[in-house]
Amino acid sequence: MKKFFAELLGTFVLVFVGTGAVVFGNGTEGVSHLGIALAFGLSIVAAAYSIGTVSGAHLNPAVSIAMFVNKRMDAKELGTYIVAQVLGAILASAGVFYYASNLGLDTTSLGQNGFTISAFGAFLFEVIMSFIFILVIMTVTSASKGNGKIAGLVIGLSLSAMILVGLNVTGLSVNPARSLAPALFVGGQALSQLWVFILAPIVGGVLAAIVAKELLGTED
Amino acid sequence: MKKFFAELLGTFVLVFVGTGAVVFGNGTEGVSHLGIALAFGLSIVAAAYSIGTVSGAHLNPAVSIAMFVNKRMDAKELGTYIVAQVLGAILASAGVFYYASNLGLDTTSLGQNGFTISAFGAFLFEVIMSFIFILVIMTVTSASKGNGKIAGLVIGLSLSAMILVGLNVTGLSVNPARSLAPALFVGGQALSQLWVFILAPIVGGVLAAIVAKELLGTED
Amino acid sequence: MKKFFAELLGTFVLVFVGTGAVVFGNGTEGVSHLGIALAFGLSIVAAAYSIGTVSGAHLNPAVSIAMFVNKRMDAKELGTYIVAQVLGAILASAGVFYYASNLGLDTTSLGQNGFTISAFGAFLFEVIMSFIFILVIMTVTSASKGNGKIAGLVIGLSLSAMILVGLNVTGLSVNPARSLAPALFVGGQALSQLWVFILAPIVGGVLAAIVAKELLGTED
Amino acid sequence: MKKFFAELLGTFVLVFVGTGAVVFGNGTEGVSHLGIALAFGLSIVAAAYSIGTVSGAHLNPAVSIAMFVNKRMDAKELGTYIVAQVLGAILASAGVFYYASNLGLDTTSLGQNGFTISAFGAFLFEVIMSFIFILVIMTVTSASKGNGKIAGLVIGLSLSAMILVGLNVTGLSVNPARSLAPALFVGGQALSQLWVFILAPIVGGVLAAIVAKELLGTED
Repeated sequence: MKKFFAELLGTFVLVFVGTGAVVFGNGTEGVSHLGIALAFGLSIVAAAYSIGTVSGAHLNPAVSIAMFVNKRMDAKELGTYIVAQVLGAILASAGVFYYASNLGLDTTSLGQNGFTISAFGAFLFEVIMSFIFILVIMTVTSASKGNGKIAGLVIGLSLSAMILVGLNVTGLSVNPARSLAPALFVGGQALSQLWVFILAPIVGGVLAAIVAKELLGTED
Repeated sequence: MKKFFAELLGTFVLVFVGTGAVVFGNGTEGVSHLGIALAFGLSIVAAAYSIGTVSGAHLNPAVSIAMFVNKRMDAKELGTYIVAQVLGAILASAGVFYYASNLGLDTTSLGQNGFTISAFGAFLFEVIMSFIFILVIMTVTSASKGNGKIAGLVIGLSLSAMILVGLNVTGLSVNPARSLAPALFVGGQALSQLWVFILAPIVGGVLAAIVAKELLGTED
Repeated sequence: MKKFFAELLGTFVLVFVGTGAVVFGNGTEGVSHLGIALAFGLSIVAAAYSIGTVSGAHLNPAVSIAMFVNKRMDAKELGTYIVAQVLGAILASAGVFYYASNLGLDTTSLGQNGFTISAFGAFLFEVIMSFIFILVIMTVTSASKGNGKIAGLVIGLSLSAMILVGLNVTGLSVNPARSLAPALFVGGQALSQLWVFILAPIVGGVLAAIVAKELLGTED
Repeated sequence: MKKFFAELLGTFVLVFVGTGAVVFGNGTEGVSHLGIALAFGLSIVAAAYSIGTVSGAHLNPAVSIAMFVNKRMDAKELGTYIVAQVLGAILASAGVFYYASNLGLDTTSLGQNGFTISAFGAFLFEVIMSFIFILVIMTVTSASKGNGKIAGLVIGLSLSAMILVGLNVTGLSVNPARSLAPALFVGGQALSQLWVFILAPIVGGVLAAIVAKELLGTED
């Protein structure tokens, strides 16, 4: 139960800080492309070194599924984590919606993901980015190969790197919960393209789990 | 007495560097939103790894109150810390005022906090942000769950994350001393809204202390 | 064989994230000079703390040659690493080309290196930058003088520093594989100037290996 | 003798990367205020984790004087360090001049320090900034209170914080060698104001040494 609240809170932090920076900071014109990248990345730092001590701060169903694939958690715990992550993300998007309204901002932009290229291209891009990102997570949190003390910094800064390359391609998700929540509030294209941002991170995450185990020996 | 001077000096560093970057750097048009976020965050790094060795570098009455709630300091020490923090912040704002005058800048803008949304919305926002920020502090400095060597980096970068999401909402305070000092020099709205920036961080800090203890086991 | 795939994957990450940020992020006008510097730097963080556990994450033929000079790897392994790095970089540039096309961007700009100053000046600049960068790598990964836990962070941030000074001079390569790959796709000047970006990093790397050993005692 | 070359090389890295980023990066319009701050800060990271293993990477006569005041080095070694630092900085400014000429840039701007406020104000500002910066250095490198593994990161990021607040006030020196070198090449006001940037960092450094010892117990 502690893990449930920890994951819920941590995912709230990630999505509220990350998408909130996009929305309240006026996107790349204001807070800047790099500012958005660091808002997401440093919110992971904040979550990892607080609630991460209880739940490990997955903050992302694709990460939890990768952990499950490599037997670091069981099916029941996986379910608990995913529900917590989705709830935390929805609460965050509700908060961003509330403040965007109060600030008189356009509430059809809540930091949702989306793309103008082909669905295949977007899907492939999110698979590659999720694979790289979750490969870092699986390695740096590995009992045998990991680097626990600085894992939160490494994971956060790696997400920032992914956003620096991917913001203009797909908005860079690599996280189904992070994409689902704003899509529920803005609907439209964000909802019709949502399947890409749910499936691709999971595919990338499963691939990362396998490569981490077989190539990098993270489960030894 | 050493702790008094350490906290005074540390809070001076935080407020002089942070609000000074806003004022001398010409705000988001010049030093940029992200530059402001990192000025505050990295000034905490500087304070944590210098005076932090003596006082722990709270730099913030809401942090000290959270420490007091979780019995990491007694009432007398709490009083000492808060007086030192307020004095350090006032000295810093006096310094910013002096240099702003010398540079021919508008001295009605000294990096004060403020909001245009409802007081309720602003209050709630600062409570949430202070809760997240101080939860990180309580965890990463915990004797049992903490990560002492990199605590200063983690706390500084977490504050930067908060500023990335909150600068356009309330100016992001999470720190009564940081808000009080410039308000004393600029008066007006900064003074009439000051209660929000004194009360909300304390409420957020007390909540963080409780959640840190009960959910994250930081005082075990 | 594991090392081969690890280096291939790691160099893909470096070149795809780094040059991709330049291309998809619209260069210094969009993602900004600093954003480009951090995209390259933080992609090294991602690679170092994932595939680095297997191969050491050289990601750069000049680094591998320096390691060979100081007898940290043999000739056969050096060959394996260089082939893997070049293949990984080419795959990355192919990916950047594919997405640039899909996004309707100008595919004659794929983040290639180049210069308008004299070839001598450019050569010297890349030698100096490569020397500094690879000196950091040789020291921080040294068995006797190193700092293994944070080596990836230090190396990544050092590359960011090099890009901050050198982006407008040569585009800052310090890495033959990183320059070769986009040049193969865009041809023209990138190809005719390529020899500078292959030779100079190697010269700088060999100098760094010697200075690291003789002055800094990294091989003791 | 090894320390001499190490300090010379390290100070070259600091001044070439830092002032080079200002000059080649087109200052705050191009590489941005924050980019300049991080160029200086991250060049310290590069120097600290390479030549710092031999000389400690002072890179700054005011730092060496503070070390001397607290008996961490003797007078002869102090002289060696200062000569090396000044030579390294001059080489760096020569290099920046050479490349600025080749790039067709205005060679009257080589990243020199300067101010438009009163000399008293500038002097006081540099004393305060140098005091804070060197206090961090004295603490984080202290045998009893220090944090050796991450000292280079902390010192570099602290310098970045100082530049975020001070770039528009004095150009932020805190380092006599860093100010002397470009002033020798550009002359004029940079030379007539140079005394401020030589004296103030030394005063700030001596104060930092005393406060570090007496208040923070760094020499215990």
